[in-house]
Amino acid sequence: MSSTPTDGGRRERFDRGMETLGRVDGEAGRRVIDALGDVSPELAHQIVAWGFGEIYSRPALPPRDRQLVTLGILTSLGGCEAQLDVHINAALNVGLTPEEIVEALLHAAGYCGFPRALNATFVAKKVFGERGLLPVRQE
Amino acid sequence: MSSTPTDGGRRERFDRGMETLGRVDGEAGRRVIDALGDVSPELAHQIVAWGFGEIYSRPALPPRDRQLVTLGILTSLGGCEAQLDVHINAALNVGLTPEEIVEALLHAAGYCGFPRALNATFVAKKVFGERGLLPVRQE
Amino acid sequence: MSSTPTDGGRRERFDRGMETLGRVDGEAGRRVIDALGDVSPELAHQIVAWGFGEIYSRPALPPRDRQLVTLGILTSLGGCEAQLDVHINAALNVGLTPEEIVEALLHAAGYCGFPRALNATFVAKKVFGERGLLPVRQE
Amino acid sequence: MSSTPTDGGRRERFDRGMETLGRVDGEAGRRVIDALGDVSPELAHQIVAWGFGEIYSRPALPPRDRQLVTLGILTSLGGCEAQLDVHINAALNVGLTPEEIVEALLHAAGYCGFPRALNATFVAKKVFGERGLLPVRQE
Amino acid sequence: MSSTPTDGGRRERFDRGMETLGRVDGEAGRRVIDALGDVSPELAHQIVAWGFGEIYSRPALPPRDRQLVTLGILTSLGGCEAQLDVHINAALNVGLTPEEIVEALLHAAGYCGFPRALNATFVAKKVFGERGLLPVRQE
Amino acid sequence: MSSTPTDGGRRERFDRGMETLGRVDGEAGRRVIDALGDVSPELAHQIVAWGFGEIYSRPALPPRDRQLVTLGILTSLGGCEAQLDVHINAALNVGLTPEEIVEALLHAAGYCGFPRALNATFVAKKVFGERGLLPVRQE
Repeated sequence: MSSTPTDGGRRERFDRGMETLGRVDGEAGRRVIDALGDVSPELAHQIVAWGFGEIYSRPALPPRDRQLVTLGILTSLGGCEAQLDVHINAALNVGLTPEEIVEALLHAAGYCGFPRALNATFVAKKVFGERGLLPVRQE
Repeated sequence: MSSTPTDGGRRERFDRGMETLGRVDGEAGRRVIDALGDVSPELAHQIVAWGFGEIYSRPALPPRDRQLVTLGILTSLGGCEAQLDVHINAALNVGLTPEEIVEALLHAAGYCGFPRALNATFVAKKVFGERGLLPVRQE
Repeated sequence: MSSTPTDGGRRERFDRGMETLGRVDGEAGRRVIDALGDVSPELAHQIVAWGFGEIYSRPALPPRDRQLVTLGILTSLGGCEAQLDVHINAALNVGLTPEEIVEALLHAAGYCGFPRALNATFVAKKVFGERGLLPVRQE
Repeated sequence: MSSTPTDGGRRERFDRGMETLGRVDGEAGRRVIDALGDVSPELAHQIVAWGFGEIYSRPALPPRDRQLVTLGILTSLGGCEAQLDVHINAALNVGLTPEEIVEALLHAAGYCGFPRALNATFVAKKVFGERGLLPVRQE
Repeated sequence: MSSTPTDGGRRERFDRGMETLGRVDGEAGRRVIDALGDVSPELAHQIVAWGFGEIYSRPALPPRDRQLVTLGILTSLGGCEAQLDVHINAALNVGLTPEEIVEALLHAAGYCGFPRALNATFVAKKVFGERGLLPVRQE
Repeated sequence: MSSTPTDGGRRERFDRGMETLGRVDGEAGRRVIDALGDVSPELAHQIVAWGFGEIYSRPALPPRDRQLVTLGILTSLGGCEAQLDVHINAALNVGLTPEEIVEALLHAAGYCGFPRALNATFVAKKVFGERGLLPVRQE
C-alpha cells in the first residue's frame, strides 16, 4: 500500500514519472528519454522514475514554482542550453508567460551575470519563435 | 518625470532601491550594504540602485517568484552561503513557507546535485532555527 | 519480488540505502542524514533511498571506482568541502590509499585548476590527520 | 547636473552606454543588442545602460584592464564562447595584442584548468583568423 | 640522470608527454595539439610537457583510475563536450568498458545533477557510435 | 644552457618558481606551500615549479596584468576565498591599488553576478584592513 505519493516499486514509479514528464515537458522530454535508450537506459529510467515519479510528483510545490526554480538553476549552471530548451517549453506548458520567463532571466543576470542570462534568453527566443510567441511585449 | 518604474537619476534609483531592499531582504540586506561602506561604496550603491531600484522594482514578476528563481541560482552556484542566508530570509519575508523552501531545494538536487542542495538546506536550517520555524513539517 | 538490484518500495530502498551508506560513508554519512531530520527529512530519505539504495547499490561500478569519480566531481564543483570530508573518508573506507587520493587531486589540478585542487587537498590533510595517516609519502 | 560619471536618467545612461559599447565591443556588441529586441528589450537596455553606461564608463579602471578581468571571468565560467568572441574582439579593440591575449589564457589554465583555457583559446583562434592575425608569434 | 619520473629539461618532458598522450588520448589528443600550433604553441607545449609528461606519467595512479577522475571533473564542469569526446575515447583506450563509463556518468548525476550527466552521456553515445560500441548493455 | 625562460630541470624550475612566488605572493604564498609538505609535496612542487617557475616567469604578460586576469578567475570560480586572500595581497604587491582592485570586482559583478563579487570584495576588505588600507576612496 502506498502511504506517500512517491511510494511504489520500480515499475510504478516509472509509470507515474512518464505521466508527469508528459504533462510538464511534453514531446521534448520524451525525445530525450528515447535518445538515451541505446546508451544509458538506466539514466533514462532514473530521470523518469526518480526525477518525475518521485520529486516532480510531490504536491509540496506546484509545477509553475518548480519551473521558476529550474530556470534559475539551468541559467546559472551554464552549458545547459539543451535542458533550457526543454524547460522553457515546460515553463510555458505549466502556465508561465513569455513575459514572466524573460523577466526571470533578466532577474537572474544580477545573480549569475549577463553572459549566462544572455545564453538563456537566446534559448527562450528560439523556443518562443517555434511556438509563435515573438515578439515578447515588455513595458 | 519617470515614465517607467525604473527611471530616475542616481539618487532616486538608490532611494527606491533601499525601500525595496528593506521590504525584501530586511535587516540582513542592510547589514551587507553597510559592511561595504569602507571598501566598495559603489558596489553597495549598484546593488541597491540597480539590483533593487531597477530590477526588483519591476512589476513583471512578483517578489515570491523572484525568490524562487534566486533560490535556484544561489543553490546551484555554490559558495554563496552568505547570500543564501539573506535570501532564505527574503523568501520567508515575501511569503514562501519553510515547507516550500525546502521542497525547492530538494527539487534543485536533481538539477545541480545533492552536495549543493545539502549546503543550501543547512543554511535554511540555520535561518529557520533563528526564526523559530523548526521543525519543518513535510509529509 | 525484486528483479533488479534497485527495485523495491520506498521503505526497502531506504533500508538498502542505509546499509550501503554505512559501509561507504560510515559515521560521517549518518551524521549528515540525522542533521536533516528536522529541516528536510525527504532530502535525507532521497539521499539514502535513491543515492545509496539505487545508484550506489548497482554492481556495474565497484565502490573504489565510484569514489574516484566522486572525488573528481567534488573537487571541481568547489564549495563542497563538507562533502569532500565525507567522501575522502569514504575513499579510505573502500580501499583507496592516501597516496592515491592526493595523486587524484594533483591530477585534478590540470583539469579544474590549482585553487580547487588545493581546497580539496587541505580537506584531505584534515581527514588524514584525524585518522593518523600523516605524513603521506609520495615519491 | 550629473555630479558623477554614471548619473543621469534612463535615456542618458542608455545613450552613454551605446557610445561606450560601440567603442569597446564594436559591431559584435551591437548585434547582440539588436538580437534581443524582440525577446527581451529590457535585458538589452540594462546591458547597455547599466553594464556600459554605468560600469564600463567609470574611469577607475582603463578599458584594457577591464578586458583582462573579463577574459579571466569568461574563460573560467565556461559555456561563454559567444561572449568570449565579443570580448576577444573587444580586447583587441582596446589595445591588447594577440600575444597578450593567448598568454592571459595560458595563465588562466593554472587557475581554472586546461579544458576551459583550450575552449577560450580556440575562440581566440577564430577571432584572430577573422581579423588576419594568425599565426600568433610566441617566443 | 633523472632521479624522478618527471625530471628532465623542456624538450625531454615534451617528448615523454607526447608518448603518454599518444597512448592515452590517441589521434584525438594529437589533433588538439596540432590545432593550437598557430595560435598558442606554448599552451600546446604545456598540455603535453606538463599535463602528460609530468602528471600523467607519474606511477602513483594507473591510467584507468585517472580517467575515472577526469570523467567526473569534465562532467561536472560543464561546457567541456570537446574534452569529454577526447577523454571518453581515452577511457576506452585505457580499459574502461562502455558499461562502466555510462555507469560513472549515472553516478555523477547525484553529485552534479541530471543536466550535466545527460550532456556527458550524449557525448559518450557519439563516441561509442563512432567506435561501433552501440547499443550499450546495462542490466 | 636555457634557451627559453622556462627551460631547466626539475630543481631549476622549482628554484626559479620560489623566487617568483616570493616576489608575487610573498609570505602568504610560502605558507600555502609549507602547509602542503606533509600531505602533497608534489602538489606544492608543481604549483611552484610549474605555476611560478614556468608560467608566471614568462615575460609575455607583466605581473600586474596577470593579477587582473587572476582576480577575474578567482572571483567567478567561487569558493576560492583562501586563494583570493593570497592574490589580493599579490595584486597589491605588484602595483594594483585598492581602488583598482575593488573596481575590478565591481566590474566582475556584471559578468558573474553580485554574490561572487560580494564574496571577493569582503576578502579584499579583510586584506586591506590587515595592511592598513581602509577606507578605500572611490569617487
